[in-house]
Amino acid sequence: GAAGQGLDFPIPDGRARVVPVTPQNHREMLQRFPVLALLDRRPRPGPPRAQEQVLELAAQVLEDKGVGFGIVDAEKDADMAKKLGLKEEGSIYVFKGDKVTKYDGELAADTLVEFLLDVLEDPVEFIEGDHELRAFENIEDDPKLIGYFKDRDSEYFQAFEAAAAGFHPYVSFFATFDSKVVAKKLDLRLNEIEFYEPFMEEPLTILWASSREEIVAFLEEHRRTTLRKLKPESTYETWVRAGGDGAPHPHMSPPDGFEFLDILKDVARDNNNPDLSILWIDPDDFPLLIPYWEKTFHIDLSRPRIGVVNVTDTTSVWMELGDEDLPGPDEVQEWLEAVLEGAGDTPDHHSEDEEDDDDD
Amino acid sequence: GAAGQGLDFPIPDGRARVVPVTPQNHREMLQRFPVLALLDRRPRPGPPRAQEQVLELAAQVLEDKGVGFGIVDAEKDADMAKKLGLKEEGSIYVFKGDKVTKYDGELAADTLVEFLLDVLEDPVEFIEGDHELRAFENIEDDPKLIGYFKDRDSEYFQAFEAAAAGFHPYVSFFATFDSKVVAKKLDLRLNEIEFYEPFMEEPLTILWASSREEIVAFLEEHRRTTLRKLKPESTYETWVRAGGDGAPHPHMSPPDGFEFLDILKDVARDNNNPDLSILWIDPDDFPLLIPYWEKTFHIDLSRPRIGVVNVTDTTSVWMELGDEDLPGPDEVQEWLEAVLEGAGDTPDHHSEDEEDDDDD
Repeated sequence: GAAGQGLDFPIPDGRARVVPVTPQNHREMLQRFPVLALLDRRPRPGPPRAQEQVLELAAQVLEDKGVGFGIVDAEKDADMAKKLGLKEEGSIYVFKGDKVTKYDGELAADTLVEFLLDVLEDPVEFIEGDHELRAFENIEDDPKLIGYFKDRDSEYFQAFEAAAAGFHPYVSFFATFDSKVVAKKLDLRLNEIEFYEPFMEEPLTILWASSREEIVAFLEEHRRTTLRKLKPESTYETWVRAGGDGAPHPHMSPPDGFEFLDILKDVARDNNNPDLSILWIDPDDFPLLIPYWEKTFHIDLSRPRIGVVNVTDTTSVWMELGDEDLPGPDEVQEWLEAVLEGAGDTPDHHSEDEEDDDDD
Repeated sequence: GAAGQGLDFPIPDGRARVVPVTPQNHREMLQRFPVLALLDRRPRPGPPRAQEQVLELAAQVLEDKGVGFGIVDAEKDADMAKKLGLKEEGSIYVFKGDKVTKYDGELAADTLVEFLLDVLEDPVEFIEGDHELRAFENIEDDPKLIGYFKDRDSEYFQAFEAAAAGFHPYVSFFATFDSKVVAKKLDLRLNEIEFYEPFMEEPLTILWASSREEIVAFLEEHRRTTLRKLKPESTYETWVRAGGDGAPHPHMSPPDGFEFLDILKDVARDNNNPDLSILWIDPDDFPLLIPYWEKTFHIDLSRPRIGVVNVTDTTSVWMELGDEDLPGPDEVQEWLEAVLEGAGDTPDHHSEDEEDDDDD
């Protein structure tokens, strides 16, 4: 066509690829597909719902990749659903080997496909040489671990690999057998594992963990990181985790807000408050939520904003930002502490909307 | 719910907001909505098609933003369609003031909403002070212009603003009246306009353009840039423009391919071949196309790749990349020139697929 070839975005072809999964066929489905995505939802006659359409399009795109798709009626087949580990109506559960992972991302075909392509990869990625080391170092906005081991037969490596399967693909696990470049430059001793929080320069070290359980326990303890980017493929998990035992602090920033991000990194690095968890949100990653957020939080998202949001009732407090320079890390930290002390976990007022005078 | 509040992704509510636009109501629609998006498509009874569902969801999200949505039957109402400037069946045309812009992005609700939110903004953005100057300088992957003018009444500024409306939002136009910081640091004289190609450090200068036509002519001449990132909101335009009068050179790179991007920047900056246009594609921006591209081009997209693609028949040639270090800019340039001289515009073979031995 006039638009040129090589850009054929998929259009639903109308073929039904998503299969009802029942006590009769669930074993066969699990055996047949290296990766199986199951939607926990009571099937019903009539036109397909939005969720099912997303699943069908993902199934069409991933048809040759060994990913199967099914719907489980967890009401009718309650025993099977329980045995499979399905808990939440409307959620998607992904099976690979003997692991089940709940999909915690946006229900959109592109995000789901990206997630499933990640699931298809091995949970541990290997790093060798300068080039791959730099690629590893460039990963800033995801939590990551790296371990240095003798070889694949090492019991330490095997514990690491077993732990990785439980966090894949939400946490990235890297391993190296390269003593000359990678281990040397990262100053890793044999069997040492390092964990990097997103945006942090200095890693935390796990020493000689020879069992999966030790690594899992360490990660569970440290996973609620200080500064985190909200991403479509892990939106719900990140949003709720940040709000876990205190109020979260979503920061919303337009694409030109990188300078503000640097300030937040400073706040995060100097921070000693274990309850303080900052979310960095680039609204361009969530266009469908921009009008909703602006309405819910009474803010204008064409400029960087920082605020404290209560995820239980969506009340929020937002820092007043002048037209001139952005506040420094100290100012932000002070403001955050004042809000947390004053309003506590339930901010119940919001600042006056600033007038949008960008265009004057 | 258990997922926390504040993350309500829109679910189609079933209300029809997309209106059939006819000779009887089109004037009223254009007057009523500051921005109007029209799909050129013969309406038909029965369940809505994928395109219409995308439009409906976008309409639902943008309901309070002053964006209207309609469908034009360009067969039945051919005269009106012609008068409105609709040319291509299946395309979306966006009306703002007396300007029509064809939407050249992926047909997905999130990308369309992002595009329309951009259209709602003014075509010229103003830059003042250090902070905004740095934000301007950080924009690397989009083409951008900046002009320094006395004030809004300047005829030079008015020509600039008139030109901006015709390229908005595909090309970013910035203006400054700030002589002390912005004009001084960018070394801009009064009424001077500078054009930055994506990824280029040195701008091209347009001197004292006092008419819209001069600026438009300059941009039309220089818009086919040497290195460009493929983006969901301008996919088709970029893909075809790159392939305009020679073969394009899509480069596909995984997220860890930033080092490869640096090499491509060097190739682009040293390049003297006006027919050479390089596309940088981050496959993570196009998850729905990954399996399709891998199949069409016989490549593995889990590693950086560079190739020459014929957009007419999707034949392609890909550079052999070893497991070790990436090729340098000279090697890439040499390889590209050999391909362009040898196979010309119609590469008709592809290299052997490399085995994916990442995991060994």
